[in-house]
Amino acid sequence: MNNQQLFENIQKKGSFLCVGLDTDIQKIPSFLLDTTDPVFAFNKEIIDATAAYTVAYKPNLAFYETEGLVGWRSLEKTVHYLRENYPDIFLIADAKRGDIGNTSTMYARAFFEKMQFDAITVAPYMGEDSVKPFLAYEGKYVILLALTSNKGASDFQFGVDNLSGEKLFEKVLRISQQWGDAENMMYVIGATKAEELTGIRKIVPSHFLLVPGVGAQGGSLQEVARFGLNNQCGLLVNSSRAIIYASNGPDFAEKAGESAKETRDEMFELLKNKGLLK
Amino acid sequence: MNNQQLFENIQKKGSFLCVGLDTDIQKIPSFLLDTTDPVFAFNKEIIDATAAYTVAYKPNLAFYETEGLVGWRSLEKTVHYLRENYPDIFLIADAKRGDIGNTSTMYARAFFEKMQFDAITVAPYMGEDSVKPFLAYEGKYVILLALTSNKGASDFQFGVDNLSGEKLFEKVLRISQQWGDAENMMYVIGATKAEELTGIRKIVPSHFLLVPGVGAQGGSLQEVARFGLNNQCGLLVNSSRAIIYASNGPDFAEKAGESAKETRDEMFELLKNKGLLK
Repeated sequence: MNNQQLFENIQKKGSFLCVGLDTDIQKIPSFLLDTTDPVFAFNKEIIDATAAYTVAYKPNLAFYETEGLVGWRSLEKTVHYLRENYPDIFLIADAKRGDIGNTSTMYARAFFEKMQFDAITVAPYMGEDSVKPFLAYEGKYVILLALTSNKGASDFQFGVDNLSGEKLFEKVLRISQQWGDAENMMYVIGATKAEELTGIRKIVPSHFLLVPGVGAQGGSLQEVARFGLNNQCGLLVNSSRAIIYASNGPDFAEKAGESAKETRDEMFELLKNKGLLK
Repeated sequence: MNNQQLFENIQKKGSFLCVGLDTDIQKIPSFLLDTTDPVFAFNKEIIDATAAYTVAYKPNLAFYETEGLVGWRSLEKTVHYLRENYPDIFLIADAKRGDIGNTSTMYARAFFEKMQFDAITVAPYMGEDSVKPFLAYEGKYVILLALTSNKGASDFQFGVDNLSGEKLFEKVLRISQQWGDAENMMYVIGATKAEELTGIRKIVPSHFLLVPGVGAQGGSLQEVARFGLNNQCGLLVNSSRAIIYASNGPDFAEKAGESAKETRDEMFELLKNKGLLK
């Protein structure tokens, strides 16, 4: 996929929603536990109920790895199901990987070849050669952690560099642009710091930003759109728990669909007001 | 395991070697490809040939994930084999994980409960709450990335903070000591920067350091020992390719054993000269 295709999907659906598939076997409706693969069964129903309102899905790898082999199988089935039935979906591996070059090459193969993800989240700490192997894939994206939505973000990401005067996350945004461009990189920017988006848009005006932290983590969609939208939308706003756990009963998929539709409707208005719909 | 037990194993074997199980199916001897699980078959022989000279093993997760389900199964079998047959071994998941709290909790379960690792490598970028869930396990360790051995380490890790005057990796060392102590944290310190070890030992005198980059990446064992050893040894030096790919023929395990023994013999002398052997 490229930015223009992603933008067209956003226009078609009137949505820049990404649904986070943080599927926790301890939180899914208990009647699913009798099926052969409860996590996949849950994901399949959630996907079918939300796909009309969503341009991206983001399985969180930790939730699958925690179940070992069984979890890995649920993940592969979920990816396969999305690829077969919803080819337009932008599919993000929320994996926060990053290692020395030969190792990142292996991770790139795992997520871009073995499984057909479009993008993977990567941590910047180890620098250029830990990121580059992911950038070698045409039509695939690295989504680099810049400013995260958690409390611990303040431990290092706001430290000011004594040479450049930048905060660490600003330095990550600037330096990483020497490694790739808006067609193979995006950035994670936590929604809990929406006021930072003005400054961030000065450094990365045309990149897509993946924004977690709306909903359960307290970020505001209005604020994120106000400071973050660009002329190709440029935002993927993720919501996980508020959508996939909207109900714990037999209506879980229906309620997830309603919750996704509600978010889509709000996004539709924001896109329309910004003149971004056809 | 705790530091004292690890030190006693080091004394018993006269070695602080960690063997990196970066097992690449494209690099293992071709005659193994006919077995049902070539990666496990390779690991098993490598382990049996090197365990006498080694106190730790470190499977690199990328090399298993890149084979999908099959790779994950090879990893689980390797961990199980080590736990059953070599209970004294310190077992490190080289996974470079780290995410918001509820997600790191899932990774901790994956590596400390589902699989019986003793330690996991974690990236510091997301700060305290991304690390803490791993620290909640008695007798288990976070090995936090501080100074890595790759070229990209210079992109961010050496940036100087304008408040504290510290380099970023020094800040990581200092601040992370508020989260845990030497009994549940270690640090990754790349061997290619051995001269940095003097300063690092001032910040973390009693922590174990996991040192990659000796061998294939060019670091010197003598230098690392000179600047890094403390009164409980305090070092685990990793070697991967130089040991596990010492030969590509039918003698691959024997040659791996010889290579591990050679490194052990060098370590034995270093420990003896420092008065650390019983």
